[in-house]
Amino acid sequence: MPFAYHRTVRFADTDAAGVVYFANYLAICHEAYEESLGAAGINLKTFFSDHGVIIPIARSEADYLRPLSCGDRLRITFKPELLQADSFALNFELTRLGPPEKCAARIRTVHVCTSTTKKGRAPLPPAIAAWVAAG
Amino acid sequence: MPFAYHRTVRFADTDAAGVVYFANYLAICHEAYEESLGAAGINLKTFFSDHGVIIPIARSEADYLRPLSCGDRLRITFKPELLQADSFALNFELTRLGPPEKCAARIRTVHVCTSTTKKGRAPLPPAIAAWVAAG
Amino acid sequence: MPFAYHRTVRFADTDAAGVVYFANYLAICHEAYEESLGAAGINLKTFFSDHGVIIPIARSEADYLRPLSCGDRLRITFKPELLQADSFALNFELTRLGPPEKCAARIRTVHVCTSTTKKGRAPLPPAIAAWVAAG
Amino acid sequence: MPFAYHRTVRFADTDAAGVVYFANYLAICHEAYEESLGAAGINLKTFFSDHGVIIPIARSEADYLRPLSCGDRLRITFKPELLQADSFALNFELTRLGPPEKCAARIRTVHVCTSTTKKGRAPLPPAIAAWVAAG
Repeated sequence: MPFAYHRTVRFADTDAAGVVYFANYLAICHEAYEESLGAAGINLKTFFSDHGVIIPIARSEADYLRPLSCGDRLRITFKPELLQADSFALNFELTRLGPPEKCAARIRTVHVCTSTTKKGRAPLPPAIAAWVAAG
Repeated sequence: MPFAYHRTVRFADTDAAGVVYFANYLAICHEAYEESLGAAGINLKTFFSDHGVIIPIARSEADYLRPLSCGDRLRITFKPELLQADSFALNFELTRLGPPEKCAARIRTVHVCTSTTKKGRAPLPPAIAAWVAAG
Repeated sequence: MPFAYHRTVRFADTDAAGVVYFANYLAICHEAYEESLGAAGINLKTFFSDHGVIIPIARSEADYLRPLSCGDRLRITFKPELLQADSFALNFELTRLGPPEKCAARIRTVHVCTSTTKKGRAPLPPAIAAWVAAG
Repeated sequence: MPFAYHRTVRFADTDAAGVVYFANYLAICHEAYEESLGAAGINLKTFFSDHGVIIPIARSEADYLRPLSCGDRLRITFKPELLQADSFALNFELTRLGPPEKCAARIRTVHVCTSTTKKGRAPLPPAIAAWVAAG
């Protein structure tokens, strides 16, 4: 079972076209990633700050399939996928709950672990490697 | 009992100082407002678009008491306060859950009902007046 | 010569990792698109609202090559590319000004013209088709 | 003469009501603050991160006088006001350029210098005190 995160579309997510601004689909998916990390016991406050190793997003792809309106209920699921010893991808599906349910977007992000002290790629920390493997 | 909304601080809420960007405290409080309207059966999709009557925010005041970090758990409570037949205020308290719990911000927004067809103030729609009275 | 838009990285663009939040790279590129449309005499207020025809983003791809910090000076260039009679792509290059200059991201967005009255694809309006052809 | 910053309203600033989201007025004013600090030679990258002394916003007040639409041209002016040896306020006026020009918002932010090492108020750094005095 992939990890599932539920979220209501907020007014601040929308733009003058009346629907969620395209870049905010990515932010909503990132929330699901954070929620899953937190559920695995990873401290988000330190995880996302620079403590010698960071895991920035190197690439994103998004297919926007349906508009989303303020008040819409969403379910975001994703599966982590190990790419190499220093990188993983997250494959998100963003569903607008119904009835009927409709897939509203498919998003993929690629994350590459980087040493900020040695200025190069670095293996995933064990806690993150375990989180990817469990996902 | 005031309405209570729970929220986790997200990475997108933060800025390079490592904590929630000051303007995002207001957005988080607005989410609690939306959640309460939705719980009262008000359709958010139509409420926040222009159908002849809008209720924009005319004023905000915020006291930022504590920084908030990614992953922090928040409770936002607020009480609506009728000001006149065409306006109300919302008095928010934003609490960082603990232990120990700490009040992180106090925010007040003033909302004024406006007719976009007649270009002037208008009485609150009955559903909103009832929501204010019940709050 | 591609269209060039200059922008300074703002505090609100950043996150707790100290650099620009990944989804905000896309928003910065969208600003360049808006600036170019405005320079071509297209009314942005009406263009981005629903007047029977909308041109939402159907897909985005982004390669994030370098982190960006508050105060960094950016140049965003892009070239429009006609895909079909109802769609176009924008190929953005986001450069951090120097010295030395560094390419910080490559982003591509795909835009598909849609009739909201007929609920299907629609040919690009002449003004937009001309803007794409001129780009 | 107060410091003046010019800015076009962007699509990402707006919400489903078709105009700038209320909290984004504050973010737009903060940009003017950043621009002025940068023009005074202050390094924004280090200024807004924690190097033992931070100057967070302790309070904001905003009167929203007019809606703003995508593409609107704005001028933001402000005057710094020294409050105490450890604090200052910024009084912003946000004008929608015309013709005719219209004041769209008045915003005030209060900034309090804080030592993160000593966990208490701290005098403004000399460069900031000079910037306040010159403003």
